[in-house]
Amino acid sequence: MSPKVQRLVKLLSRLPGVGEKTAQRYVLWLLTADEALARNLGAELTVLRDEVGPCERCGNVAEIREGRAVCEVCTDGKRDAKVLCVVARVHDLMAIERAGSMRGRYFVLGKLLSPLEGIGPEDLPLARLMERIRCDGVTEVIVATPPSVDGEATGLLLKRELGPLGVAVTRIASGVPHGGDLEFADPITMGRALAGRQRI
Amino acid sequence: MSPKVQRLVKLLSRLPGVGEKTAQRYVLWLLTADEALARNLGAELTVLRDEVGPCERCGNVAEIREGRAVCEVCTDGKRDAKVLCVVARVHDLMAIERAGSMRGRYFVLGKLLSPLEGIGPEDLPLARLMERIRCDGVTEVIVATPPSVDGEATGLLLKRELGPLGVAVTRIASGVPHGGDLEFADPITMGRALAGRQRI
Repeated sequence: MSPKVQRLVKLLSRLPGVGEKTAQRYVLWLLTADEALARNLGAELTVLRDEVGPCERCGNVAEIREGRAVCEVCTDGKRDAKVLCVVARVHDLMAIERAGSMRGRYFVLGKLLSPLEGIGPEDLPLARLMERIRCDGVTEVIVATPPSVDGEATGLLLKRELGPLGVAVTRIASGVPHGGDLEFADPITMGRALAGRQRI
Repeated sequence: MSPKVQRLVKLLSRLPGVGEKTAQRYVLWLLTADEALARNLGAELTVLRDEVGPCERCGNVAEIREGRAVCEVCTDGKRDAKVLCVVARVHDLMAIERAGSMRGRYFVLGKLLSPLEGIGPEDLPLARLMERIRCDGVTEVIVATPPSVDGEATGLLLKRELGPLGVAVTRIASGVPHGGDLEFADPITMGRALAGRQRI
């Protein structure tokens, strides 16, 4: 392989889940697809980090304008500022946005409480979160961390820390996914589905 | 999502096997990994199509120098010019190069004979291939097309067309792959493995 192609393959292999073979496939594709693809992709990527950064209010992906980054959800006047959805990562925020049923705004923690990885309460942006709750007059905090040990622990921490502020702290439901087969649900999911049952 | 990010996601989704979710994951990664990654990737991609193109001798990926593209295999003096390996795609050439056991050079057909897709002998670069064989004094043509219906048909066509030139036309072996389990080999592969048996 030519050094140029090798360099590009090495850079592409740094993307998540992309190994050398996939990177090679991408390069061959970029060399045979219409010429504009590689060029446009190059142009977008060159300026990406100058023009896109974390929203200063919630941590979502936002375009930087005049040195400031405020995302589209935070500037959307139709959102209910009193409902704040707390997520671990921007990925999760995007998944919730795709569902299209969140009428509130977001707050990205960036990480979860994790004793195993040495991440304690002092590593989470709790002060910033509390300030946000006070400034916006938030009445409900929806904890949308993943249904894992770390996600649940973070939920409990938020309940303990935010409860005294007089804000309702709720947790997204955990149960059998839509279209999922009960036969294949693991015991914990099934237990949660039963415990979280609601009157029809 | 910001329009800028949306644009980038759309461009990335055009890569083979990449859907919107994977493209989003790539963008989030590029936004959080070290800044140089997006910038370097952008720089490489911007000039890719100006600096890399198909080798004018064999069709392999090559760097364009002074308006001409000749690949590293074609300029490698240690290769045996008398052995020519014919492949369908550059991907296949790269796979063979990874194995590191080809001492000859290559010729990329670009497509295979395919009656179903309406690709006939006249669509293959046979004239260029014959010229190459004559100019380089090739004595053996190794047909390394895939072991599929189209690949085999192309092999037979090459045998018919190139045989009269007095060149030996050989075909790569088809059989049970290394590390493969005989129990799971399909009947055609097993049949080929038996038919292609060699004295130990």
